[in-house]
Amino acid sequence: MKHGDEAWRREPHLLRQRIRQGLWTGSTSGLCPGYAQANLVILPREQAFDFLLFCQRNPKPCPLLEVTEPGQPLLEQLAPGADLRSDLPGYRVFRDGELVEQCQDITSWWRDDLVGFLLGCSYTFDAVLAQAGLELPHVLEGREPAIYTTNLPTRPAGIFHGPLVVSARAIPGRRVSEVVLITSRFDKTHGAPVHVGDPAVLGISDLGRSEYGGSALTLRTGEVPVFWACGVTPQAVALASRVPFMITHEPGHMLVSDLTVQEVIAGKP
Amino acid sequence: MKHGDEAWRREPHLLRQRIRQGLWTGSTSGLCPGYAQANLVILPREQAFDFLLFCQRNPKPCPLLEVTEPGQPLLEQLAPGADLRSDLPGYRVFRDGELVEQCQDITSWWRDDLVGFLLGCSYTFDAVLAQAGLELPHVLEGREPAIYTTNLPTRPAGIFHGPLVVSARAIPGRRVSEVVLITSRFDKTHGAPVHVGDPAVLGISDLGRSEYGGSALTLRTGEVPVFWACGVTPQAVALASRVPFMITHEPGHMLVSDLTVQEVIAGKP
Repeated sequence: MKHGDEAWRREPHLLRQRIRQGLWTGSTSGLCPGYAQANLVILPREQAFDFLLFCQRNPKPCPLLEVTEPGQPLLEQLAPGADLRSDLPGYRVFRDGELVEQCQDITSWWRDDLVGFLLGCSYTFDAVLAQAGLELPHVLEGREPAIYTTNLPTRPAGIFHGPLVVSARAIPGRRVSEVVLITSRFDKTHGAPVHVGDPAVLGISDLGRSEYGGSALTLRTGEVPVFWACGVTPQAVALASRVPFMITHEPGHMLVSDLTVQEVIAGKP
Repeated sequence: MKHGDEAWRREPHLLRQRIRQGLWTGSTSGLCPGYAQANLVILPREQAFDFLLFCQRNPKPCPLLEVTEPGQPLLEQLAPGADLRSDLPGYRVFRDGELVEQCQDITSWWRDDLVGFLLGCSYTFDAVLAQAGLELPHVLEGREPAIYTTNLPTRPAGIFHGPLVVSARAIPGRRVSEVVLITSRFDKTHGAPVHVGDPAVLGISDLGRSEYGGSALTLRTGEVPVFWACGVTPQAVALASRVPFMITHEPGHMLVSDLTVQEVIAGKP
């Protein structure tokens, strides 16, 4: 079998198994093309209503795909039986608005009152853009796209408030319409871009300084920077809001679901 | 009645009557919002097939709304009874690839072998963008948008070949997605933009130098230049192809039709 063509790179349940066994701890960018990927936010039940309301008020950065029952770590819809505690290749633990741990398994942190929120991820449409012939460098390199914290506020809900985080891709100017039209069909994975062009109006002073481990954005001739709302937003919100306790995925290290891209377009789950 | 609110500014048949009487010779930009406007190309039957093929191969700049029978100057679909010879506020006559006359009436030029081609015009969606709160300076001023000849070739057909001409609008970066989505519904009036961002890749060296009488494009902070295929393209083609005889509208001086914007979205005519 050719390198890079192993079955676990294509089949979500095989990839999740490999992750659970600790055999894959890298980014999920470019893996299992054709399947939806998801951001993760885990909160105690006490903050769950506020966060659900935050997602309802901020559907571009926080499009909800599934919410688990309190204490239930297994998914039902996105990937039946997948375990939120071990099936993502990286996690971040926040306490009182500070990042206190980065790890590959959160079984030791699990509690009976924890609720999991799965939010759509732009990796889902990256595969569709690739099929359309848009070879995005971060996908080819298996890395996160460029990610930036903006000066745009989210709509607050309860204790949750903070800035919008965006991912950015360099798109040839003649293909911006096509990219808007394709991604507009993915409203469950951030949808159409929130901004095109000058990054300064988002408060981004230097495109070369990507945050959250994202790639640097390089613009070639005729390319324009295009920005999408990003599922890392809750992590910026965790810091800004000094959330007492919250677990998220490590940026770029997503839950790879069993949901196909076609099902996402069709409005599932 | 308030200035600027006269019925003929809102009702296409009243505006066309006024134009026929020689009482309005200006641009139709911003007039009769909610109704489709159209570019005009008139050619002898001998060149009509080649041009029809040219339109079929270049649907973005040349979306066909109606083609008249040879020698028939009256429209049937877009504006029943409207006279191609007198109901537009300005015309251009080309001979052997040169502009030989600009006038307000072409009755003296009419021949029994002439065929009229009506092509969709971006003024049609300008009114919809205005309703969405995008106040475009050229609409407010009743002027043409910025217009540029690009270095992109059209697909040739028979004797017809030449560069793509585009219209440009300055759009706030956060509203580019919305503008793409709105205008994509208007495939009969140029549809979604052909380019966003750097004008240099279209061979446009100076946005301040608009052609065909268009407004200068001024970019405010956070705005990005957005380019649509333009119905003036056949005029650039007439020059490049040295077409023996051709009459067009004067840029910005369109046929204002009875077709509503809703009908255009619904696929009429």
